[in-house]
Amino acid sequence: MGKGLPKRSEDYSQWYNELVKRADLAENSAVRGCMVIKPYGYSIWEKMQATLDRMFKETGHSNAYFPLFIPKSYMSREAAHVEGFAKECAVVTHYRLKTDESGKNVIVDPEAKLEEELIIRPTSETVIWNTYKNWIQSYRDLPLLLNQWANVVRWEMRTRLFLRTSEFLWQEGHTAHATKLEAVEETLRILEIYSEFAEKHMAIPVLKGIKSESEKFAGAVDTYCIEALMQDGKALQAGTSHFLGQNFAKAFDVKFATKEGNLEFVWGTSWGVSTRLMGALIMAHSDDDGLILPPNLAPIQIVIVPIYKNDEELNRIMEKALQIKTSLVNKGYSVHLDNRDTHKPGWKFAEYELKGVPIRIGIGPKDLEQNTVEVARRDLKTKENVKIDGLETAVDGLMKDIHQSIYDKALKFRKENTFSADSFEEFLDIIENKGGFVYAHWDGSSETEALIKDKTKATIRLIPLENKKEGGKCIISGNPSRQRVLFARAY
Amino acid sequence: MGKGLPKRSEDYSQWYNELVKRADLAENSAVRGCMVIKPYGYSIWEKMQATLDRMFKETGHSNAYFPLFIPKSYMSREAAHVEGFAKECAVVTHYRLKTDESGKNVIVDPEAKLEEELIIRPTSETVIWNTYKNWIQSYRDLPLLLNQWANVVRWEMRTRLFLRTSEFLWQEGHTAHATKLEAVEETLRILEIYSEFAEKHMAIPVLKGIKSESEKFAGAVDTYCIEALMQDGKALQAGTSHFLGQNFAKAFDVKFATKEGNLEFVWGTSWGVSTRLMGALIMAHSDDDGLILPPNLAPIQIVIVPIYKNDEELNRIMEKALQIKTSLVNKGYSVHLDNRDTHKPGWKFAEYELKGVPIRIGIGPKDLEQNTVEVARRDLKTKENVKIDGLETAVDGLMKDIHQSIYDKALKFRKENTFSADSFEEFLDIIENKGGFVYAHWDGSSETEALIKDKTKATIRLIPLENKKEGGKCIISGNPSRQRVLFARAY
Repeated sequence: MGKGLPKRSEDYSQWYNELVKRADLAENSAVRGCMVIKPYGYSIWEKMQATLDRMFKETGHSNAYFPLFIPKSYMSREAAHVEGFAKECAVVTHYRLKTDESGKNVIVDPEAKLEEELIIRPTSETVIWNTYKNWIQSYRDLPLLLNQWANVVRWEMRTRLFLRTSEFLWQEGHTAHATKLEAVEETLRILEIYSEFAEKHMAIPVLKGIKSESEKFAGAVDTYCIEALMQDGKALQAGTSHFLGQNFAKAFDVKFATKEGNLEFVWGTSWGVSTRLMGALIMAHSDDDGLILPPNLAPIQIVIVPIYKNDEELNRIMEKALQIKTSLVNKGYSVHLDNRDTHKPGWKFAEYELKGVPIRIGIGPKDLEQNTVEVARRDLKTKENVKIDGLETAVDGLMKDIHQSIYDKALKFRKENTFSADSFEEFLDIIENKGGFVYAHWDGSSETEALIKDKTKATIRLIPLENKKEGGKCIISGNPSRQRVLFARAY
Repeated sequence: MGKGLPKRSEDYSQWYNELVKRADLAENSAVRGCMVIKPYGYSIWEKMQATLDRMFKETGHSNAYFPLFIPKSYMSREAAHVEGFAKECAVVTHYRLKTDESGKNVIVDPEAKLEEELIIRPTSETVIWNTYKNWIQSYRDLPLLLNQWANVVRWEMRTRLFLRTSEFLWQEGHTAHATKLEAVEETLRILEIYSEFAEKHMAIPVLKGIKSESEKFAGAVDTYCIEALMQDGKALQAGTSHFLGQNFAKAFDVKFATKEGNLEFVWGTSWGVSTRLMGALIMAHSDDDGLILPPNLAPIQIVIVPIYKNDEELNRIMEKALQIKTSLVNKGYSVHLDNRDTHKPGWKFAEYELKGVPIRIGIGPKDLEQNTVEVARRDLKTKENVKIDGLETAVDGLMKDIHQSIYDKALKFRKENTFSADSFEEFLDIIENKGGFVYAHWDGSSETEALIKDKTKATIRLIPLENKKEGGKCIISGNPSRQRVLFARAY
């Protein structure tokens, strides 16, 4: 265990799949396209949830829960929305099983057919805006700032653990506002929260921007996103925040009385991040020996491993190890003391490397004599002897340093793999031979975008929010362009 | 708002429905049988989740996540299980929508029919034991102590908010053990957790016991339960913990190598509580003016309402009110200061009574002069003037007292509504005219149980775990009985 993962340089895709399984994060279930999130993986997701949930609540949002089922007719109300999701909808048609005439087989009872089929929610705008219609009458009912933590289903033909599964877990925020300005502000506030979460908790640098027409959410006016670069040079969309305009308010007839007594359609936003973030976290930092987790999201932040030859040594070491554990737990760290006698220290070291535990503390008989411990950090694989008296302070500093170091490494990688291309040949060469992010001029048309995608498999990841509005010519049509946009091949 | 609920004495059922809606707990959605849990209701559920989750983790359990979908064939593996759930299964048969030939309607694409239908999980034993088969090889892999927080679907024809809905939220624990003894111990450990949660957090006294054969979980060897008595004299099953024996291990071929090297089937348990607890909480304590919430589960524990005639007064009061709020928040209370000028104090008082906020603090100009506040408790509707200097201590004491007082009231009600019956006539009279719990002798046969249910609509709520083994004669068959069992009409 621990060693023997495929190497990233040889088969990145296989390395990822194996890592997810062997680090006990998730596995494919017997149900096509659906994953089982294992306890260790789920505990990382719980940490993500807790942090995001706090950030949402601090900005005035409350949680609620809406039905799993969406009547088929709701899906059709917003034209772009149904167009975007129709091809991946799981449909409930019956509500009962029965035993067949032979008495041996269980079949779907044909008499228990639903009058109207129900869709398993691929996202909940329709069912939520249908509810908001009853909740919103006046400007006093606005803004309405809700979020839900839920499972959703989008039927996928090709699935990959965490990155693309038919069922996944996520949060979806749905807000309603009296003015366009407020709704746009909310969209951007959430984009900031996502960006801060990615950088300060996941230690992943992200770029912020807006999607092109063809990449935006089905039903949105504008989709804002954060994009991260993975170690194989592919981009990963880590979160999206949609300005919905009045699209869903119009589709579900949600109007409010203004202070002046006029009736107006409500302005909306929706936004979400999902268990896909787990995929981003794994791919952004980990190495050929296993996971590398940033301290803020590691279920076990510190593991203590006693190193001993006999029971007498173990007893003496355990006394000290327990003291150390207690002092670190009291500082708020999650600490695991692994004194199992069924595995050797070397095996344990490899296991906790595989699992991405940020700090490992080893204690042997010599350490007891010298009142020191060996502190190893997972990310750089460096070790040092630390006096027990100063251990808490050393750990505090190390945790900050590990976060910063992981982040800096990812940022350095991104910088080294971000390019500008001024011709299609140059563009194609970078995309095919180097990968990474490529800034290039584009004429703004969907046709050109589709042509580039067709020829290179690269898509527009985002139109930057803030970059110099440098004029130029589209790399493929030669038409004028007012700014470069960000291209990459993507997950 | 606040007043004008139907009275419990006149229409208990309507009182409940209206209270759930008007206190902003939940409402029916447009999807038949599915509810929308509104933010205020959901925040109570979040408090329940947080407490239970902590209790599970403190006893060694971890969270994980398993698929929403269960292949139809899995359901059939355990005979009693499919028999129990077949009639309420929502079935997914297709995975795509499309536009029909007219181009106007969205229909289910007949070409996207699943080879094997998928059931929306009504409970997850089958999909989880199918996974455990791969996770358990040796005694070293045991015990496996997992829980998941999830939505489940059981198609219901007659639904009631929180009490019986087609989709509901719950936690379901699924554990695997090497011995029968360990599995039974786990079943009872969880029963204790549920009982402690009900009494110490929900302030609801519960009785513990074991279900009769006909009332037990489909697939269990034994189902243990906690039962509470509602104010209308009906029982409510608030949580169940199942000893599964080796039933699911055999159905899914889950064996482990013992220390001695033998291959044996694994022993299992499963256990759950759901959003039904919300129904129990509401019905156990609330009155004709609205909710009464125990302090441990109240989203707002204290509301502060300024009472003023003009802006000058308001400003002076607000200064003091903010000081009080800060000091109480620092003590760990959730405090809401309602200084809205759109509503009068009387309206606010009624609103927070409706919402069940345990303590209300009023501050007017006279209070400022005397350095006091008016403290009102929701449960007894009593008020007293309290010196601001001693307010924190007074609130601490009051919170404990409120919890105890709510609990004691429910316990007193249960005692006054628990009866013994020695003949069928007496039994029927109590059930029809008084309601409540009735201890009576029963001969242990399913036929007698069915007959009693048929004649009285009362069911065996539980066979007590610890009561005197008093011999007697069955109230309907006259056959010998070794102990009384607990009957009631139930939700």
